[in-house]
Amino acid sequence: MTVRFGLLGAGRIGKVHAKAVCGDANAKLVAVADAFPAAADAIASAYGCEVRTIEAIEAAKDIDAVVICTPTDTHADLIERFARAGKAIFCEKPVDLDVARVKACIKVVDEVKGKLMVGFNRRFDPHFMAVKKAIDEGRIGAVEMVTITSRDPGAPPADYIKRSGGIFRDMTIHDFDMARFLLGEEPVAVTATAAVLVDKAIGEAGDYDSVSVILQTASGKQAIISNSRRATYGYDQRIEIHGSKGMVAAENQRPFSIEVANGEGYTRPPLHDFFMTRYTEAYANEIASFIAAIEKGVAITPSGADGLAALQLADAALQSVKEGKLVKVA
Amino acid sequence: MTVRFGLLGAGRIGKVHAKAVCGDANAKLVAVADAFPAAADAIASAYGCEVRTIEAIEAAKDIDAVVICTPTDTHADLIERFARAGKAIFCEKPVDLDVARVKACIKVVDEVKGKLMVGFNRRFDPHFMAVKKAIDEGRIGAVEMVTITSRDPGAPPADYIKRSGGIFRDMTIHDFDMARFLLGEEPVAVTATAAVLVDKAIGEAGDYDSVSVILQTASGKQAIISNSRRATYGYDQRIEIHGSKGMVAAENQRPFSIEVANGEGYTRPPLHDFFMTRYTEAYANEIASFIAAIEKGVAITPSGADGLAALQLADAALQSVKEGKLVKVA
Amino acid sequence: MTVRFGLLGAGRIGKVHAKAVCGDANAKLVAVADAFPAAADAIASAYGCEVRTIEAIEAAKDIDAVVICTPTDTHADLIERFARAGKAIFCEKPVDLDVARVKACIKVVDEVKGKLMVGFNRRFDPHFMAVKKAIDEGRIGAVEMVTITSRDPGAPPADYIKRSGGIFRDMTIHDFDMARFLLGEEPVAVTATAAVLVDKAIGEAGDYDSVSVILQTASGKQAIISNSRRATYGYDQRIEIHGSKGMVAAENQRPFSIEVANGEGYTRPPLHDFFMTRYTEAYANEIASFIAAIEKGVAITPSGADGLAALQLADAALQSVKEGKLVKVA
Amino acid sequence: MTVRFGLLGAGRIGKVHAKAVCGDANAKLVAVADAFPAAADAIASAYGCEVRTIEAIEAAKDIDAVVICTPTDTHADLIERFARAGKAIFCEKPVDLDVARVKACIKVVDEVKGKLMVGFNRRFDPHFMAVKKAIDEGRIGAVEMVTITSRDPGAPPADYIKRSGGIFRDMTIHDFDMARFLLGEEPVAVTATAAVLVDKAIGEAGDYDSVSVILQTASGKQAIISNSRRATYGYDQRIEIHGSKGMVAAENQRPFSIEVANGEGYTRPPLHDFFMTRYTEAYANEIASFIAAIEKGVAITPSGADGLAALQLADAALQSVKEGKLVKVA
Repeated sequence: MTVRFGLLGAGRIGKVHAKAVCGDANAKLVAVADAFPAAADAIASAYGCEVRTIEAIEAAKDIDAVVICTPTDTHADLIERFARAGKAIFCEKPVDLDVARVKACIKVVDEVKGKLMVGFNRRFDPHFMAVKKAIDEGRIGAVEMVTITSRDPGAPPADYIKRSGGIFRDMTIHDFDMARFLLGEEPVAVTATAAVLVDKAIGEAGDYDSVSVILQTASGKQAIISNSRRATYGYDQRIEIHGSKGMVAAENQRPFSIEVANGEGYTRPPLHDFFMTRYTEAYANEIASFIAAIEKGVAITPSGADGLAALQLADAALQSVKEGKLVKVA
Repeated sequence: MTVRFGLLGAGRIGKVHAKAVCGDANAKLVAVADAFPAAADAIASAYGCEVRTIEAIEAAKDIDAVVICTPTDTHADLIERFARAGKAIFCEKPVDLDVARVKACIKVVDEVKGKLMVGFNRRFDPHFMAVKKAIDEGRIGAVEMVTITSRDPGAPPADYIKRSGGIFRDMTIHDFDMARFLLGEEPVAVTATAAVLVDKAIGEAGDYDSVSVILQTASGKQAIISNSRRATYGYDQRIEIHGSKGMVAAENQRPFSIEVANGEGYTRPPLHDFFMTRYTEAYANEIASFIAAIEKGVAITPSGADGLAALQLADAALQSVKEGKLVKVA
Repeated sequence: MTVRFGLLGAGRIGKVHAKAVCGDANAKLVAVADAFPAAADAIASAYGCEVRTIEAIEAAKDIDAVVICTPTDTHADLIERFARAGKAIFCEKPVDLDVARVKACIKVVDEVKGKLMVGFNRRFDPHFMAVKKAIDEGRIGAVEMVTITSRDPGAPPADYIKRSGGIFRDMTIHDFDMARFLLGEEPVAVTATAAVLVDKAIGEAGDYDSVSVILQTASGKQAIISNSRRATYGYDQRIEIHGSKGMVAAENQRPFSIEVANGEGYTRPPLHDFFMTRYTEAYANEIASFIAAIEKGVAITPSGADGLAALQLADAALQSVKEGKLVKVA
Repeated sequence: MTVRFGLLGAGRIGKVHAKAVCGDANAKLVAVADAFPAAADAIASAYGCEVRTIEAIEAAKDIDAVVICTPTDTHADLIERFARAGKAIFCEKPVDLDVARVKACIKVVDEVKGKLMVGFNRRFDPHFMAVKKAIDEGRIGAVEMVTITSRDPGAPPADYIKRSGGIFRDMTIHDFDMARFLLGEEPVAVTATAAVLVDKAIGEAGDYDSVSVILQTASGKQAIISNSRRATYGYDQRIEIHGSKGMVAAENQRPFSIEVANGEGYTRPPLHDFFMTRYTEAYANEIASFIAAIEKGVAITPSGADGLAALQLADAALQSVKEGKLVKVA
C-alpha cells in the first residue's frame, strides 16, 4: 500500500516533511498547497507533485493523508476539516494555543473517528528512542527522575515571541511531551520559575527566556526541565533518566566528531546550531511512523490527546510562575 | 607560623581531618578528644599527638585552633565555648539543625570576634574550584542557570535519617551551599518537590529520599538541584553552569579511567562509591584553606553565615514541599 | 547541468552508489547493467532507470559518466573501455590488484585525457574531512605523526580472502590512502609486521588478519596503521594526527549516542557494525564530489594515480613482512 | 615489620621517593646521602632523617633497603655494592645504558641472592593497573595488539640528550617495559623508524625526537609504540589493548575534569604537564609494592631482568633504524 499525501504549507518545515514523504517507499506526495504560489511551486517542481488549493486537496480522491504545516492559528480548523474529509492527519505542534480550542478540535476528530498525529518530533530522534528502549527493556529499573536540558542556539525575534504563546507553550511544550513520554506516568503537579536573562525585548513582549520547571507524578516521580532561549555552544538537547537500577542519558549531537588538542586544551566542535539539522532523522522517522500507523491501521501517537496534555502542562507552568505556587493538573 | 590543632571527635570524619592537619606543613596536631577513649587513642598513636579532654583542649595554651567532628547536636555549644576560649574553629556542617540556634551561636562568635569556618568541603574540590575559576575569569559570561546533580551511592539507615534533620538539611544543604557559591547572588525564592521512591523506611521516618529544588535570585538567575539517596553507579556529583557566553561543567570522578569495549558496548567503571574517596582532595584543601586564613589573618569562608544561609534554604525547601508553594527567603 | 549516469554492477555497493546518484540534484541515473538481470531490474525499478548492456552504455549518447561496481578483475578493462568511450569514470577501489596492470590502465586513461576517480570513500567521511580541514587551517601546525586504527567488525570468509589480494591490498589499502591524504608528503619507506591471530582459515588461505605498519616520508613524518580483521565492539575507524602545534583526532561513530550507568559502570553502545552504515555520508559525499568535479571541469581526486600509490604501499608492506626489512618506495 | 630505608640521591626524583617512603606505614626513612650536602639536608629536615655518607649507609645495621636515585652512570656500581651489603635495592631505571654492564650487574645480584627492583613506575599507575587487571580477568580475551602512545610535554635540553643514551633507551624504554608487561609474551622482533621533527639540536646531538616502533612476539602478537618529545597539549600517556574478545584502554589524565563550552566548541583542560604530577600515585604505589615484597619475602618485580629486557629492545630498535631492517631479539 502507498499512502498518498497532500501537503498544506510549503514553508521551512513543510519542505522537511515533503522530503520525508518522498523518501519513504510507502508514501507518495500527490499535491501541495500554500498561500504563496511560489512556495508551493518550489516543492511541486522539486518533488514532482501538483499544486492544488486546500479545498481541492480536501475533496481529492487520490489523497489519503495530509501534513499540516500552515500557521498555528489555522491548525485546529484544518484538522477538523480534513478529519471530516476522512484524511489521516499529521499536524505540526501545537494543535492550538488555547486548551478549550484544542479540546473542541479533538472532539471533532473523535466523533468522526479521525486519525490525528501531532508533530512532537523528538520522540522519533534515534538517540532518544534508544533511551526509551533502554527504559522499556528494564535496564534502569523503575523511572524515578527525568532531567531534560533544552536550550535553543539563539532567541527568536520579539515578533515571533508575540505570536508564540509564550516560552512554555512554544518551547517547553516539547519538553513537557518528552517528560510525559519518559516518565511513564502522568504529571499531576507543576512548579516553575521564569525570568528574562537573555533578551529584554522578550520581557517587553510579555514572555520569559529562561525557565526551570519541576513536574511530579502521583507516585512521586519527578521531571526537571531547564530551558534557555540562547546557548552559545549550539542546540543543547539532553535527556537523562535516573531509575531504581541505573541511569540512562542521551548525549548532545554535533555535526563533526573531532577533537583538536593544543596548549589551550582539548576542543570538540560546537553542537548542531539548528533544530532541523539536529533532528533530521527524527523528522524522517516521525513521518515514517505516521505512514506505518496508517498502513497497519494501528493507533497513532503522539495523538491529539498528547498535544492537549502537553499544552495543559504549559498552562500550569505559566500559572505556577504567575501565582508563585505549585499547580495541580487534572 | 605553625597552627597548633586540637581535634574534637575521632570518628570517621575526624580521621580525615587529622590526616589533613598532619599532612599540612603549616599545621601540627597537638591533641585529640573523644568520648570513646579507643577512638582517641587510635588517632593519637597514628599521628603522634596527645589524648586530652575537651576541657583541657579548651584551656590549652599550646592549641590555636580546633576541628569539631563531634555529633551534630554538640556543634553549637562547642563553637560557643571554643570561640570564647579564643580558638579558631573549623566545624563540620551543620552548625545546628535549628535556624534560631545557629543564629544565636553565630551571634556569640561575632561578639567575641571569633573565627569560624563551616565544613562545606565541596567548595574545595579541585574540579569544582576549576569551575568557579572559569566563572570568575569570565569564560561563560554572566551566570544564568546552575544545575546540580547530587546522588548518594546508597541510602543511610532509617536511624540515621531520624537524627539527620531530613534530606534538605542533611544532604541538599551541600547543594544549597554550592548553588549560593556559584550563583554569585543570593537566592530569594525556593520551590521544591519531594517523594519517597528509594526506601519506604525513609518515608516512615518522616523524610524523603528523592527531591527536586529550584532556587531563584532577585535578578532571575536559577539553580536546579536534583537529589536521590541512591545511585547504583556510584556517588554522582555534577555541577553545570549556563551563562551568557557559554557553559562550564564538572564531570563525575571515578577511581580508574579505563574503558573496556566488547559486543555489549564501551564500558567505563562506576564512579567513586564513597564521599571520602570522592572528596579526598577537597578535605585536604579545606583544612589547608582554614590554616592559610588563620595564618594570613583574613576572613574565613565558608563562614557561620554561610552555614546559616544554607540551612535557611533547606527550611524553605521543606516548607515549599509541605505547603505546595514558592517560599520567599529573606 | 545534469550528469547522466550509467551504473555497471548492481550488487551491494552498486545500490549504495545508485542511491547517491539519484539523491543528487545535479545527477540522473539513466541505466544500469549487471550480469544478473534480477539485480539490474531491482535497481531499475527502485530508481526508475533502464536496464542496458555494458556495450549499450558504452555507446550511449545520453550517458556522461559511469560508476563501476563490478568484480575487481574487470575494473581495469572497463576503465579503459569507458575512458576511450569518453565517459567520466568513478571506479570502486582497486583499479586492479597488480601494479603493472594499474599502470597500463592509467596510461590509457591519460592518453585519452579521461576522467577517473577511484573510490576511496573515507576521504569523504564528514568527520575525517573535518580532520583534514583542521590540518589545512593550521590548527595543529606541521603534521608529524599519523595514527590510523582500522579494524573490521568480523573477518570475511576464506573464499573472499583468496580473491582479495591479501589484507594489505584489500583492507589496509584504505589506510594507505588516508595516510597519504593526511601526511601531506609521500611515504618513501614501509615496514610492517603481520600475523594470523583471528582465524586460522585466513592463514591457510595465505593471508594475515592482524597487521601493523609504519610509513615514513622523506622528511621523517611517520604514519602508523593498526589493522585487525575482527573487533567485537564494532567497526573501529579512528584517525589521529600529531603535529607541531597540537593534535587532531576523529572519534569512532556509533548509531546511538546514549549511555547507561549501573553497578557495572557506564556503558555506551557498540560502534556501527557495517562499513555501509558507518560510511553512509561518505558514500554520498564521494559521488557528489565526482559530479561536482565533472560539472566544474576540475581535476578529480582521488585519481588513478592515488589508487596506484596506495597499491604500491600495499605491495611494499607485504614485501617488508616477507623479507623482514624496511622497503623503500619510489 | 618496618622496612628501614636509606636514600641515595636527594634530587628531584629522590624527593618523590622520600615522600613515598615516609607516607608508607610499613617503612621508615633512616638516612639520606647526596654529593650535594644542601640537597641531603633539605630531605633530612623535611622528613626527620639523618644525613650519612653512602659508605655509612652501606655499613649501617639500621637500614634494610635503599632507594638509588643517583646519576645513571653510578647505578650498576651501587647496585652491586648494596646487594653485597645485603640491602634490598630499589633502583631508578635504567640499571645502565650498556647491556653488557647490566648483565654483569644482574649476575652479581643473583650470586648474592640480592633483591633488586627497577623503577618502571608506569606498571603501578592505578589506571594502567586497572587495564592489566581487566586483561588478567579475561575481559578482552587473548591479547593481540597493544598500542602505546607516549609523548612528552616538551623536549629536554640537548645536554640531557647527550647523556641520555638516546630516545629509545631513555624514553621509549618505559614503553618497551609496558609492552612486555601487557603483551604477556616476549617480543622476538623489533622494527622502528625515527626522525628529528621537534628540535634540530636533538638531531645534532645524534638522537631522534619522533619514533615509531613495532614489536612482535613469537605467536604474532604485536605492539605499536608512538613517541614524540613534544606534545603541546600535555603529557600524553595512553595505552590500548585489542584482544580476541574486546578492547581495553586507559585514558589520559588531567588535573581538572571540567569542560567549558562556547561558540568555539567544548574545551577540556590540557593534560598534566609533568611526569611527576601525572604519575604521583604510581610513584607511591611502586614504593609500597617494593616494601610489601620485602615484608612478604616474595619475588620483586619489575626485576633487574625486566630492566635488561627493556634495554635490549631499545638497542634492537636503534639497530633497526640504523640498518633499515627487522631486528630479531633473543
